[in-house]
Amino acid sequence: MIPELGTRQPGTHQFATHHLATRYILKKTLRELAEFVQGTVVGDDQIEITAVAGIEDAQHGELTFLANPKYRAKLQHTNASAVIVAPDIDIPELTTLKVPNPYLAFAQILTLFAVKYHPPVGIHESVILGEDVLIGKDSALGPHVTLGNHVRIGERTIIHAGVVIGDHVTIGSDVLIYPNVSILQEVSIGNRVILHSGTVIGSDGFGFAPTATGEYYKIPQIGTVVIDDDVEIGANVTIDRAALGETHIHKGVKIDNLVQIAHNVVVGEHSVIVAQVGISGSTHVGSHVTLAGQVGLVGHIQIGDHVMIGAQSGVTKSVPEKSMVSGSPAVDLQLWKKSQVALLKLPEALKTIRTLEKRIEDLETRLKAATEHEK
Amino acid sequence: MIPELGTRQPGTHQFATHHLATRYILKKTLRELAEFVQGTVVGDDQIEITAVAGIEDAQHGELTFLANPKYRAKLQHTNASAVIVAPDIDIPELTTLKVPNPYLAFAQILTLFAVKYHPPVGIHESVILGEDVLIGKDSALGPHVTLGNHVRIGERTIIHAGVVIGDHVTIGSDVLIYPNVSILQEVSIGNRVILHSGTVIGSDGFGFAPTATGEYYKIPQIGTVVIDDDVEIGANVTIDRAALGETHIHKGVKIDNLVQIAHNVVVGEHSVIVAQVGISGSTHVGSHVTLAGQVGLVGHIQIGDHVMIGAQSGVTKSVPEKSMVSGSPAVDLQLWKKSQVALLKLPEALKTIRTLEKRIEDLETRLKAATEHEK
Amino acid sequence: MIPELGTRQPGTHQFATHHLATRYILKKTLRELAEFVQGTVVGDDQIEITAVAGIEDAQHGELTFLANPKYRAKLQHTNASAVIVAPDIDIPELTTLKVPNPYLAFAQILTLFAVKYHPPVGIHESVILGEDVLIGKDSALGPHVTLGNHVRIGERTIIHAGVVIGDHVTIGSDVLIYPNVSILQEVSIGNRVILHSGTVIGSDGFGFAPTATGEYYKIPQIGTVVIDDDVEIGANVTIDRAALGETHIHKGVKIDNLVQIAHNVVVGEHSVIVAQVGISGSTHVGSHVTLAGQVGLVGHIQIGDHVMIGAQSGVTKSVPEKSMVSGSPAVDLQLWKKSQVALLKLPEALKTIRTLEKRIEDLETRLKAATEHEK
Repeated sequence: MIPELGTRQPGTHQFATHHLATRYILKKTLRELAEFVQGTVVGDDQIEITAVAGIEDAQHGELTFLANPKYRAKLQHTNASAVIVAPDIDIPELTTLKVPNPYLAFAQILTLFAVKYHPPVGIHESVILGEDVLIGKDSALGPHVTLGNHVRIGERTIIHAGVVIGDHVTIGSDVLIYPNVSILQEVSIGNRVILHSGTVIGSDGFGFAPTATGEYYKIPQIGTVVIDDDVEIGANVTIDRAALGETHIHKGVKIDNLVQIAHNVVVGEHSVIVAQVGISGSTHVGSHVTLAGQVGLVGHIQIGDHVMIGAQSGVTKSVPEKSMVSGSPAVDLQLWKKSQVALLKLPEALKTIRTLEKRIEDLETRLKAATEHEK
Repeated sequence: MIPELGTRQPGTHQFATHHLATRYILKKTLRELAEFVQGTVVGDDQIEITAVAGIEDAQHGELTFLANPKYRAKLQHTNASAVIVAPDIDIPELTTLKVPNPYLAFAQILTLFAVKYHPPVGIHESVILGEDVLIGKDSALGPHVTLGNHVRIGERTIIHAGVVIGDHVTIGSDVLIYPNVSILQEVSIGNRVILHSGTVIGSDGFGFAPTATGEYYKIPQIGTVVIDDDVEIGANVTIDRAALGETHIHKGVKIDNLVQIAHNVVVGEHSVIVAQVGISGSTHVGSHVTLAGQVGLVGHIQIGDHVMIGAQSGVTKSVPEKSMVSGSPAVDLQLWKKSQVALLKLPEALKTIRTLEKRIEDLETRLKAATEHEK
Repeated sequence: MIPELGTRQPGTHQFATHHLATRYILKKTLRELAEFVQGTVVGDDQIEITAVAGIEDAQHGELTFLANPKYRAKLQHTNASAVIVAPDIDIPELTTLKVPNPYLAFAQILTLFAVKYHPPVGIHESVILGEDVLIGKDSALGPHVTLGNHVRIGERTIIHAGVVIGDHVTIGSDVLIYPNVSILQEVSIGNRVILHSGTVIGSDGFGFAPTATGEYYKIPQIGTVVIDDDVEIGANVTIDRAALGETHIHKGVKIDNLVQIAHNVVVGEHSVIVAQVGISGSTHVGSHVTLAGQVGLVGHIQIGDHVMIGAQSGVTKSVPEKSMVSGSPAVDLQLWKKSQVALLKLPEALKTIRTLEKRIEDLETRLKAATEHEK
């Protein structure tokens, strides 16, 4: 099982070049898939589907999808055996699976076919467990995982290699934690949460009391982080624990890679935070908010529900619900767009102003001459 | 000690729901706390304090604080048994602990009550040590830690699980290193330093010599990183080693999460670097500087002492001491503020310019007509 | 070999203070070095060189270099025994090594002298290997490394402590992977690739299908990441796997720390990506492109070959080859520079516009009066 250095095992070369061929072993008829996503087949519903792929990559026996009608022309050249479409789209030359939301149906069917690469159920012998640890059934802990004392883990939760979990951490069921994640003490994580590699949950908030000499005295961060059900957090994200109380990520929030969430931040349900966003301390983000990439929010502000904030914006004050803002400092999106268009015309406008100034001077001189002449 | 998968240990359920109840076992009289922070009690100094909390969260037996007088009204509804205030604040209805700097005193008292979750003193059996490693007394190395050869570690230093420390690294006393930190070869770390999870100290600087064909030849980064006493570095920070010489973080510097510090950067004493800042190679930052969130500094510039740089600024040239700058490219703060206010008026101003142009044309035509008429 | 806590091994103190003295054990004559970089010695080519250093730090027996002629005056005070210069530079007082590209020759010679700190060849006893793992000869796997099933690793590849490698990952020869890197399933890595600590390759792309209720359904990310030969990737970088197909980093690309590369991104050969850049999904970056620090690219755009994008720019649309753009939103570099200069003059310009408006009003009044008077 452990090969010698520098040797190749006989018979494995073929596998090396074709090692992914075994991935797609699932077969479903189009009818079964239609039932799964509650759609309707137009054409042969007995076609056997073995994989899902993009329009251009799909092969015979595979299913593709048309989420955006502008790509319809590409379907003429697809090798796919069937295509998921919206109810009002007719593709006479192809078997179609009609559903109200083709993109969602594609995702749901893909979930069926996606191969899962996880450590086997059980606790790997190299795992270090603290005292009073409880782990639910069918969970899996990979190699070199460390659990502190008084940890609680639910059922069917998968923890990959190198993850470190601190004392008094509670983790729900069906959670998926990728390699080298660090979860510090007292953090609470709900069900069906996904944490990608290298992410840190529960690092200290950035809080210091300035002293009379201009130095900084650390304020102990004794609060925690609460992550609700169905949250997904990307790779190398940092979520700080609260100074007092809790940093709270509500149900269904999706956070991309390299995001920073400071102490005592609250993010409301089903909000989306794109990569490299930074949210400063004690700011509250509403529900169904979208923060585009590299946005920064100052501390102690409120972002209302359904707000959209444009990429790289710097938000310096609270934003009322359903607003769209952009810029640094961020303002109303339309105002920002107009001012950015205007900015590019500014160098010319400054020249025009100088010209106008001269024409006015000239007018003043001539008018003065004319009126004096008159006298 | 290691429970079976899917079992719950009898008698632990109560602990699961109340498992934090045992955290606050420390009791101090208000008088003892007053002596500790050199303050004065107005009221009953025999009150027993068991915890410190915010004004709204504090319970009977707990101490709260009023750092900002604008929150004074909230004290009417607090359940706290006492409150830390500035000397000129009188709260007749509550016992007060008067100190010159309530926020600092709060932090100091909180340090007493904060529970520490660290691996026990000693070297966990899963730790891998290189040759010629010296570790001072009362230090603690958690599970799955790796130390290279010729590592020196001081006394009472705590190294959490999954930390990797390279060859010839020197670490002082009373240092705290959280899980999954990577410290590469030859790095030197002072006393009372805190490194949060996922942080990398001593990765290669980003240096390449372009070749005639437009490719890049790696310049070996043979310098190191020196981190002085009392520095705190957040989670998932990256500090690159110098090409030649050293990258140097001076005493008392506080660095937030996801900050990038390039090779040969120097950061002066007691400077503060907020999350997601990036400092390019060979730039020198003075002492008592504040870099707000997501700031970027180009390479090879000097930032003077006591400079403040606004969030998301892009600094392209050296900044003299005690300046405040903002914007990308960064300019004097007041100039930047005025130009941002003006920018929002620009679309209207461009319209005004067009109107003025027409009025001038009209004036020119009429004046011409008037003077010609005159002839 | 493992010292007791709190003890110091006799005889090691001298080593502790001079422990780096043994690093520079290599000696080469200047003539040997000249042959290595195909240069010409002017002066004594039998000088023995023991190290390479900067002009100000170099000591007797060491070699320095002059890449930028503006630093020539500093050579008057160097202690270096010889200096690498361009062919047209004459330094009568020093022995010189003349080469067409002094910076490149410096890097090449430094590569000779740089000490390498890597785990010894072989598989450390704490490594966990999956099934069907093949590792080429002279490779080294450090402590607490985890390899999944069906992993292929080439020859002379070095994997530091705490690295986690998923199932079906293929890694070439002469690859260098620093501590605590995570490489997820099916990722393919070429030869001579360097991955710095904490980096994550193959985390899920950020893809969700919105449901009718405003929630998000995860789109399984079943594609992979392909990293070609001679790529270097900094610390705490995140590179997401493709939704379908592959995220692809082509030959010779250099990526700095804390960069985010989203699913299905393609980066062309020999492009350079500076720290904290974020590239959104499905964007294609050409070859020989430079993305300066903290740049953000939106998704689904094309960046042409040889494009340069200024620091902190936000690129919202495709950029043709050989362009230089800057700003957020990014525009032509010269236009951006002019508009930024103009912006600082805008507050004054707005005042001028108000003055002009008054002068025009005045002119209009006076002209009206003059012409009426005339009647």
